[in-house]
Amino acid sequence: MPQKIIVIGGVALGPKAACRCKRLDPAAEVTLFDENTLISYGGCGIPYFVGGDIQNVKDLCSTPYHTVRDPKFFAEMKGVTVKTNTRVTSIDRQAKTVAARNLLTGEESVHPYDKLVLATGASPRKPDIPGADLANVFTLTKLEAADDIRRQMEGSAVTSAVVVGGGFIGLEAAVAMADMWGVNVTVVEMMNQVLPGVLSASVSGMAAHDLTAHNVQVFTGEKVLRLEGADGKVARVVTDKREIEAQLVIYSIGFIPNGQLASEAGLEVTSRGAVVVNEHMQTSDPDIYAGGDCCSIKNLITGKPGYLPLGSMANRQGRVIGTQLAGGEASFPGYVGTWAVKLFDMSFCGVGLTVEGARREGYDAIAVSVEQLDKAHFYPEKSMMTLEIVVEKGTRRVLGLQGACTDGDSLKARVDAVAATLQFARPTVDDISVLEISYAPPFAAAMDVVNVVANVADNVLAGRIRMMTAGEFLELWKNRESNNVFFIDTRPQKAAEAVQAVHPEWHALSLEAIQTRWNEVPKDRPVALICNTGLRAYDAALVLSRHGITDIVESMGGMQSVLKIGGSI
Amino acid sequence: MPQKIIVIGGVALGPKAACRCKRLDPAAEVTLFDENTLISYGGCGIPYFVGGDIQNVKDLCSTPYHTVRDPKFFAEMKGVTVKTNTRVTSIDRQAKTVAARNLLTGEESVHPYDKLVLATGASPRKPDIPGADLANVFTLTKLEAADDIRRQMEGSAVTSAVVVGGGFIGLEAAVAMADMWGVNVTVVEMMNQVLPGVLSASVSGMAAHDLTAHNVQVFTGEKVLRLEGADGKVARVVTDKREIEAQLVIYSIGFIPNGQLASEAGLEVTSRGAVVVNEHMQTSDPDIYAGGDCCSIKNLITGKPGYLPLGSMANRQGRVIGTQLAGGEASFPGYVGTWAVKLFDMSFCGVGLTVEGARREGYDAIAVSVEQLDKAHFYPEKSMMTLEIVVEKGTRRVLGLQGACTDGDSLKARVDAVAATLQFARPTVDDISVLEISYAPPFAAAMDVVNVVANVADNVLAGRIRMMTAGEFLELWKNRESNNVFFIDTRPQKAAEAVQAVHPEWHALSLEAIQTRWNEVPKDRPVALICNTGLRAYDAALVLSRHGITDIVESMGGMQSVLKIGGSI
Repeated sequence: MPQKIIVIGGVALGPKAACRCKRLDPAAEVTLFDENTLISYGGCGIPYFVGGDIQNVKDLCSTPYHTVRDPKFFAEMKGVTVKTNTRVTSIDRQAKTVAARNLLTGEESVHPYDKLVLATGASPRKPDIPGADLANVFTLTKLEAADDIRRQMEGSAVTSAVVVGGGFIGLEAAVAMADMWGVNVTVVEMMNQVLPGVLSASVSGMAAHDLTAHNVQVFTGEKVLRLEGADGKVARVVTDKREIEAQLVIYSIGFIPNGQLASEAGLEVTSRGAVVVNEHMQTSDPDIYAGGDCCSIKNLITGKPGYLPLGSMANRQGRVIGTQLAGGEASFPGYVGTWAVKLFDMSFCGVGLTVEGARREGYDAIAVSVEQLDKAHFYPEKSMMTLEIVVEKGTRRVLGLQGACTDGDSLKARVDAVAATLQFARPTVDDISVLEISYAPPFAAAMDVVNVVANVADNVLAGRIRMMTAGEFLELWKNRESNNVFFIDTRPQKAAEAVQAVHPEWHALSLEAIQTRWNEVPKDRPVALICNTGLRAYDAALVLSRHGITDIVESMGGMQSVLKIGGSI
Repeated sequence: MPQKIIVIGGVALGPKAACRCKRLDPAAEVTLFDENTLISYGGCGIPYFVGGDIQNVKDLCSTPYHTVRDPKFFAEMKGVTVKTNTRVTSIDRQAKTVAARNLLTGEESVHPYDKLVLATGASPRKPDIPGADLANVFTLTKLEAADDIRRQMEGSAVTSAVVVGGGFIGLEAAVAMADMWGVNVTVVEMMNQVLPGVLSASVSGMAAHDLTAHNVQVFTGEKVLRLEGADGKVARVVTDKREIEAQLVIYSIGFIPNGQLASEAGLEVTSRGAVVVNEHMQTSDPDIYAGGDCCSIKNLITGKPGYLPLGSMANRQGRVIGTQLAGGEASFPGYVGTWAVKLFDMSFCGVGLTVEGARREGYDAIAVSVEQLDKAHFYPEKSMMTLEIVVEKGTRRVLGLQGACTDGDSLKARVDAVAATLQFARPTVDDISVLEISYAPPFAAAMDVVNVVANVADNVLAGRIRMMTAGEFLELWKNRESNNVFFIDTRPQKAAEAVQAVHPEWHALSLEAIQTRWNEVPKDRPVALICNTGLRAYDAALVLSRHGITDIVESMGGMQSVLKIGGSI
């Protein structure tokens, strides 16, 4: 008897699991249900469709070779039966059946299964405020909404838009609308920074600056109270601090896993409603699998159950489930939390915990950041890269790595290398110091930025240098009348003197000059050093300390980091 | 008593070890000897200086902040004494002294040490043929030679040049001379392919094609017999197959580790003369360290001693040695063999063993390659990436990964991620199938090429698909009159029919057409499938096999791979 497989959900994981199972077990009868008309689309592409990079919504439903992935495709090419517009309403685990309703005809039906896959995804969190039901208030997860937003953009009625939520999708949508359509976009984020949870407050400042420098307004630590409109259409957003004009509002404030079916069937779910699975992606009922955005999976850094709704995770899990369905054995050990996002000039990428996240998890953690060219400094094409490493004191364990760079691929290379170590080991800073990455001048520096950030972390952990973020340095400078700090700019004399001309309390003492003029530095005041990236300040600190001046703090990433957060002296 | 540290060798590792030691142990008296005038230069940059990317040879001796790393720099900034033009002639391990001679004055001196570092590097293998001493025959490791070659390029006397040796430096030099100076360059390589040892014959064909497509002639499997000249200058290269005009010849046929000092001092060296070290970079005398190009270190894939002379390795090892010198503990576990090289349009990057190398090491290995876009297929900016994975049958262990792409950073990201897994684990194809890399449409595909190549390897290992390289496919096509193979092109009908118009024995049966026209495919002949990248052929094979046609082979990477090796139908 061929086994009967039922898959609930037709985006990313569902089709992958179905096709993989059918591939390994051609006799299996595989049926996939989805309550929508369009299936198997790249939801992550929606902001790029809104932004005009993608012309046709069908491109999001196509294979890379431009075949539309519709029920006919799955039937003819993959031997998988797909029933769209059909909602599975309940699971009877004793009878091993699911009940379904055709949303177009209302027809009810019951389908037996030997094995079942829950690929029910997640739903965008809806705004629970007055005005949320006005027209032109969208979430950005369905192709239908994307089509609607795109049409609004192409028309001329929308001149101002507000994005509520400064996470990945929110920021991608903000960039799409501002960059392509010239709409005045404002991002409102309730937390104190954009990209909360994935970037430190410090690196997040670089993301915020990239947005504001391109005329996207960013308001953080601000709560939307209500939406107001006219003629049933949204017209403005009212926050706890201001009113913002907007003919279109996109809500992007997170996802709620669709665990209801599982929960009602008595399967184990987390307090957030995510389906609990083991490393074979099996739920508490071994004949029922679940994966993708409806699931909780293990965070390999903390060892705790976590939640990471990403299309890439879903695809990889789908293949594991397909193998299991066909009687094979495959595992999905968990996640370390890699991510990437491209804004205007800058890309951001990371893995693991931020320093604030690590502290919330109870780790005694520090973050150390550097600015360094991503290629050999003598190679003509190169980009300045920010890398920030998060390390647990004591154990020296690496808990995360995040960064910013105009060259997104180059940044991804460093992050993915460290991400791979986090998946297979518990690396320390010493492991990352000697991490072997591919090298030639057009690809990396001989002592690459990913090694250097670990080296600097080692020096900080050992107490050999004291560092502060660009933001902290600017704060120190702002309070210079009260804190008695002696500020030294160790860049080439000309650059430093230009600042000194405006601010006499800014001391131009280039690395070259400090060799002989170290005695101009008072021994009874704390010293703050800054240069272009941090290297000259490091060498200058060595010189000063040989002369007994040791109460020194260095600005991490130097003026490069200051500029990237939009600061100035 | 401050400890006395002597470092022999002033490029890459030596200065790094010296400065690191001095940083941790400021009281130490650290002296560095080098027999040349210029020290601490980026030798890997020499081809870029020859090619004009770098204007001034001093840029190769500078810090990223443009300070020249000369003895004055090391004395003032780092507290390290540097003696240039001084050759260490012997080591007395009993007395713990080194003897040195000043090459300018002839002065002899003896210096005591508590700990000694050998950073003596490697020497280029010299041509041992008639004419090798003619003028304008160079190796490419000294800045002085680089300066000379660059001047020859800037003049107009050199119109043709030959590079002997198709390894990294040879090819970089060939590109530099052809690209910038329009010189007719010919590469002669004794082995049957360029980049031997690091690329499979198959992917190596893509490197050769990138060279020949840009007017660099490539002759492989060809041996240089002698150099002939006039007036003491080289004029032509005579190989076992032809004579090649050349006013300039660059020899780049490998390196010999400079292990003589170590060997004469009774330290353990390999049969190739490389210094043997443990994981703390200590030689057989625990007070003597060695690192960089003069050393043999452990190949973490094979577990055997190996040799990988790369500036990046040297820098990382230098820091480990510096820590050890200062009484700390640091380790360098070995290498997995990452590398990268940029030619004209294409970059190549890899880690671990090639399929041929793996077989030489006794592994029952296969290679599987794919062509896939490196970004979401709907994202506008993307590159077609070739990735080839090397896997041991049975254990399913991943032994290496190599690739080719116009976007070098993007390729590096995939290679470095897998390289990191190889440093910390013994990954199988299943591990790489679920390897978590950072994802968003501008950075990767939801099912990324690095996961896909592992997935395909899994299918090949399980016998679910049979594949051949583009070269093998072209061979099969060439021999079509004798082998009875039925060739099917599953690309869109129009593309396939264009070929069929010329070759009636080429069957245009697009993936769409094959649904209904599968019965045109004979059941009694072997079938070879090709499409654009491999995806359509894969799906077409599924359709055919459902109709009982199973003697199928698919061309890996499809027409994309065929084109990359310069092939055509």
